[in-house]
Amino acid sequence: MNPVFRDLKTSIFETMSLRARELGAVNLGQGFPESDGFEDVRRAAAEALIDQSNQYPPMRGLMELRQAVADFYGRTQNLNLDAADNVLITSGATEAICAALLSLITPGDEVVVFEPMYDAYIPLIERAGGVPKIVQLKPPHWRFDDEDLKAVFSDKTKLVMITTPNNPTTHALTRDELESLGRFCAQYDAVVISDEVWENVVFEQPHLSVLHIDSLKDRALKIGSAGKLFALTGWKVGFVCGPQALIEQVARAHQFITFTTPPNLQYGVAYGLGLPAERFDEAREELRIARGYMTTRLSDAGFEILPAGGSYFLNIDLTPLNLKMDGLAFAHHALETCGVATIPLQAFCPTGRELPILRLCFAKSLTTLDKGIEGLIRAA
Amino acid sequence: MNPVFRDLKTSIFETMSLRARELGAVNLGQGFPESDGFEDVRRAAAEALIDQSNQYPPMRGLMELRQAVADFYGRTQNLNLDAADNVLITSGATEAICAALLSLITPGDEVVVFEPMYDAYIPLIERAGGVPKIVQLKPPHWRFDDEDLKAVFSDKTKLVMITTPNNPTTHALTRDELESLGRFCAQYDAVVISDEVWENVVFEQPHLSVLHIDSLKDRALKIGSAGKLFALTGWKVGFVCGPQALIEQVARAHQFITFTTPPNLQYGVAYGLGLPAERFDEAREELRIARGYMTTRLSDAGFEILPAGGSYFLNIDLTPLNLKMDGLAFAHHALETCGVATIPLQAFCPTGRELPILRLCFAKSLTTLDKGIEGLIRAA
Ligand SMILES: CSCCC(=O)C(=O)O
Ligand SMILES: CSCCC(=O)C(=O)O
Repeated sequence: MNPVFRDLKTSIFETMSLRARELGAVNLGQGFPESDGFEDVRRAAAEALIDQSNQYPPMRGLMELRQAVADFYGRTQNLNLDAADNVLITSGATEAICAALLSLITPGDEVVVFEPMYDAYIPLIERAGGVPKIVQLKPPHWRFDDEDLKAVFSDKTKLVMITTPNNPTTHALTRDELESLGRFCAQYDAVVISDEVWENVVFEQPHLSVLHIDSLKDRALKIGSAGKLFALTGWKVGFVCGPQALIEQVARAHQFITFTTPPNLQYGVAYGLGLPAERFDEAREELRIARGYMTTRLSDAGFEILPAGGSYFLNIDLTPLNLKMDGLAFAHHALETCGVATIPLQAFCPTGRELPILRLCFAKSLTTLDKGIEGLIRAA
Repeated sequence: MNPVFRDLKTSIFETMSLRARELGAVNLGQGFPESDGFEDVRRAAAEALIDQSNQYPPMRGLMELRQAVADFYGRTQNLNLDAADNVLITSGATEAICAALLSLITPGDEVVVFEPMYDAYIPLIERAGGVPKIVQLKPPHWRFDDEDLKAVFSDKTKLVMITTPNNPTTHALTRDELESLGRFCAQYDAVVISDEVWENVVFEQPHLSVLHIDSLKDRALKIGSAGKLFALTGWKVGFVCGPQALIEQVARAHQFITFTTPPNLQYGVAYGLGLPAERFDEAREELRIARGYMTTRLSDAGFEILPAGGSYFLNIDLTPLNLKMDGLAFAHHALETCGVATIPLQAFCPTGRELPILRLCFAKSLTTLDKGIEGLIRAA
């Protein structure tokens, strides 16, 4: 048995969701919306199941979808992508990250990552033979600077893994941060994998992609997620965009990881990407309202909320509560005795750092948010 | 860039299918049916897209589907599986193989494989850090014996990868072969991964699974494919069945490879697995007719057909044709100048062995088979 996986537990998202289901608890843990996503996109996929071929689509994805991805990013983010050369479809963003890491890492390569981070990164990097070099970011702003990068870059650095907007910190990397990263990557000839699945869940400013940065765009892969774009997290349709040589390399791994992605869901997503901007704005407005509501209710109840950027999440600082337990214990306590599932930030800290911060998913109905917040008030 | 993938080409299936599409050629290469699969299963999945949640299903698969898999194998293969402990749902059999290899191999482990073999095995084994130990099987019967196993097993053997019925040889492993493998695995404490995606495409005898063998059932994983069962190869819904400890380990890799599989397709497959035996028999009869038709037409045209077992494939011996080229060159010639795509067996030989044998997919309409065979006659 491989030791990376042997010593691993089931992910905290899964554990919390399974237990919340068992208990009938409110689930503000795993990041999925309570709504059931774009209905016409679901209908388009349902129609494709009946009207279109259900046999193997091309390994890199249906050309219809790759074109739709290129057009969508052209229209919404002003990116210039060629559907044939610069776009690869994967079975979700998780598979995209897995394929990118397996295909780009040679054992012994150093990979720069930023903590807190999504829980899949370290096991995948280690399974690929990479050596993680971890920058520990600090609340409340979670920014890195040149000093941080200097401390982790070396001649062995081959790859940098970033998430913008970030899960769990919600911080969207600034142009300054990305340009500073660009200088280091150019100097050390490193490639960036940018997990941008929350690109459309940003409230204050337009999304800034790794592919917008001159010094990075020829050495970076941008990963997107239809599940997140259309609030259909179970669909598992991901996009990798970037320079042809890198896309080629990732495709070679993808062909032996899942080979391809269900054609009807690809047709549904292609339809969805063609929808007018208002539809995406509406979805964002709904989330903005939920976020505002949760912010107010939590503040009124005396919780301290950290600065919030993109994603479905708000983070609360547990320090002022003077708890007699750490964040993980508090999350278990809140779930078991007060019926609300949340995720403690230490679950995103592979170094074992204890961050007294709790992540809450606000992509829920106001009624659900009320119940969840009441549970938290009881738990605190 | 990782050298395993850097030095790899796009798979022959993909290359041949893309080129066949470009040329408007008959495609007897990649293994997919011309029919569009079980229509009511497609409808069930389309309904689930509208009626059921489209958010993350449980990482190991919907309990409805895991139960349906356990029941199906109980009913059709007399296997005794617990839905919760012994079944994991993956995004296709390819992902199942990837997750099994990544989670079970520790770098340096030796992995026994049999050539010819499916093209994904060696890159995945090598990417996982395993050292392939290849048994070269010989036509026309492709059987292994104790001598073959003795030559490749060692104290470093941790894993054996088998395919039964086999693609491309079509040979279904006999009880003798599996029991002999069981003795070696018990002696060397090795685990078997058994790719059984063709289990329902067998014509002469009932399917014999690795889990039917006493000496193997506690140390083996059986991999199945809904795509192959329902002739919906684009769906990418796979099943891994086996002892709880092995399933646990594979699930830990699965959670970071794709995390989960689209719920509507899982509902569709759960529905399909509950269909009466006659439906599967009908599908098999249609394939039997196509196989018989192709056999007759090829024999009439003077081609020599190798003994045929399970799967969508028939193999023809190219030796009697006295070609002035190898199988790969002949396959390209047949595609480019005679409009028929096929797969040469050397594409399944990572050792570089040149087998003068051509694989043909017969899961097509009789009209398509006619056109393909006429192309082959012209090419020969
Ligand atoms: C794949 S489950 C995790 C979902 C998610 O993005 C999160 O909760 O952080
Ligand atoms: C994943 S493409 C290959 C399909 C197949 O099983 C074959 O053609 O051998």
